[in-house]
Amino acid sequence: MPKATTTIAWDPDTESILFIDQTALPRRYEVVRCSSVERLAEGIRRLEIRGAPALGVAGALGVALAALTSRKPDPDRFRSDVRKAAEVLRSTRPTAVNLAWGVDRVLDRVLTAPSIEEARARAVAEAVAVADEDEAVCRTLGDYGADLIPDGATVLTHCNAGALACRAWGTALGVVRSAVAAGKEVRVIACETRPLNQGSRLTCWEMAHEGIDVTLITDSSAAYLMQTGAVDLAIVGADRITHDAVFNKIGTYMHAVCARHHAIPFYVAAPLSTFDLVHMAKDITIEERSRDELAWCGDRQLAPEGVRVLNLAFDATPLDLVTAIVTEAGVLRPPYREAFASARRGDAR
Amino acid sequence: MPKATTTIAWDPDTESILFIDQTALPRRYEVVRCSSVERLAEGIRRLEIRGAPALGVAGALGVALAALTSRKPDPDRFRSDVRKAAEVLRSTRPTAVNLAWGVDRVLDRVLTAPSIEEARARAVAEAVAVADEDEAVCRTLGDYGADLIPDGATVLTHCNAGALACRAWGTALGVVRSAVAAGKEVRVIACETRPLNQGSRLTCWEMAHEGIDVTLITDSSAAYLMQTGAVDLAIVGADRITHDAVFNKIGTYMHAVCARHHAIPFYVAAPLSTFDLVHMAKDITIEERSRDELAWCGDRQLAPEGVRVLNLAFDATPLDLVTAIVTEAGVLRPPYREAFASARRGDAR
Repeated sequence: MPKATTTIAWDPDTESILFIDQTALPRRYEVVRCSSVERLAEGIRRLEIRGAPALGVAGALGVALAALTSRKPDPDRFRSDVRKAAEVLRSTRPTAVNLAWGVDRVLDRVLTAPSIEEARARAVAEAVAVADEDEAVCRTLGDYGADLIPDGATVLTHCNAGALACRAWGTALGVVRSAVAAGKEVRVIACETRPLNQGSRLTCWEMAHEGIDVTLITDSSAAYLMQTGAVDLAIVGADRITHDAVFNKIGTYMHAVCARHHAIPFYVAAPLSTFDLVHMAKDITIEERSRDELAWCGDRQLAPEGVRVLNLAFDATPLDLVTAIVTEAGVLRPPYREAFASARRGDAR
Repeated sequence: MPKATTTIAWDPDTESILFIDQTALPRRYEVVRCSSVERLAEGIRRLEIRGAPALGVAGALGVALAALTSRKPDPDRFRSDVRKAAEVLRSTRPTAVNLAWGVDRVLDRVLTAPSIEEARARAVAEAVAVADEDEAVCRTLGDYGADLIPDGATVLTHCNAGALACRAWGTALGVVRSAVAAGKEVRVIACETRPLNQGSRLTCWEMAHEGIDVTLITDSSAAYLMQTGAVDLAIVGADRITHDAVFNKIGTYMHAVCARHHAIPFYVAAPLSTFDLVHMAKDITIEERSRDELAWCGDRQLAPEGVRVLNLAFDATPLDLVTAIVTEAGVLRPPYREAFASARRGDAR
């Protein structure tokens, strides 16, 4: 593993997948060498790998692994083997769109290959391409976004839209990395991101790991730091962008409202694959997660038994609170209807 | 202990103090019978008793206990004994203004009494008066505030400004209790209040204990619930109110900004003893607490070692974001300069 965080990668020498076990962070940095689909599926289920782009890469590499490890000499039984493995991978996180997309992209190469040998070669090539593209998209997006970060800026972020959510580099944190790579001095304020603390555990870890200045705060401190002038801009990732709203980790909306109140720029960084221009915000259901995430923390009981918990995983930020959206096609600004159309045509700035 | 939460009380039969051990909540409801100043001081130090008004009551009752338990037959040595105990109590939380105030009020009665027997009687009477007054102030304040709560309202609150922070009834939650006592249907949304989770541990416990409808959320969900129309008003307590701002638990300011954005009333409930009309907000230093409160939760490490943590305990909400302040002298509304003056004269509504 290089010093720059690579969350998931193909190791051609041993024909296996290497990934960072994110459940061990921040306590231990542990790279898992994974040479079976079963182990990979377990890693996805246990959230050792998480983050939509990273899951797409995992799905792609998983199907390549299935093609390499199938012992069936007959082409039909070989394809059936790989198809089954793809199904196992796809079902680990049924709502993760990127996972299914990564799985299908490699499976298609396997099923259309003229021989088992050729299927294996194409599967590995395609999976590595998926991984490389993910990183390339993040780096392009990061470079566009870096222009938005003034030298010496303090940047507020929420959750982990970083290298650990992607193959590498990250989206919101990719913009920070690109700004740092361009020689700018950047300080990051990481909100802990309750209840699962991706900010404390992952954003702090990956920033500190690369020597980027980071300070951890409670989610509820952000507005006050904006009031005192300690925050120059906010930047977050996105799980889905519709024509009218950005869906992202709960807390994103609160930061956007407070940024507007203090006239602080509020940016979203996300690849075009995050855009859902079919639905409107009202069509999207916000996932409710388990009571225990708020009622317990480690061995500590935080809430009385029986008390109702509303644990919303995401919120929706209306686009009129978003200063700009950083994509691999350029920085999109209002009016967004025209900007989205132009990004799809490929002529955004 | 009655069903209504009494956080701290004098038991005349056994001449001892009864208090709820708040460190055991929400896991266990445990009433401590305390018949020595040493045990009381330990309870204050360990945060078994917390909340500014409750600490004032504890200080007062503690000095009464000292007067009753001193074995010195000589009046001078008796007074010296009680004075020493008062010093021990005062030093347990040196920054808690109310604690010193409660201690001094009873100590004064002891030192000016003509005999040991009379000193003991006066000390107990004064300490019980301090406790009764605290509850009476909360009930008066609650009744004024209840008029602000529409029947069927959903009320957002932050931290614990409840019975557990006072002798009983509470300030922000006292308003809720008074509204419920007036026959209104009220639902409470409790923000967990990171990093010490007074919302999860204490507000949820005391609401559930009395059968008042309560739902626990992350602090970062409040704005989104305002957006969806699930919150009718917000009400919080205060640690200090200056001419220009309300100082209260970190997160209060964020809720006030978001309430303004959604045109939702934002109320503060606090006794007049909370008012500091000598200082302005810029004069007040915001307490920074320990790194470990964010870096750890129970046995779970949340942040990497070495990462900087900014753990602010309070924030300052400018009064122009506060719809009204509920006190025992009535409901104060802008312009606050006149309202504060009228409350001090005693002719507020």
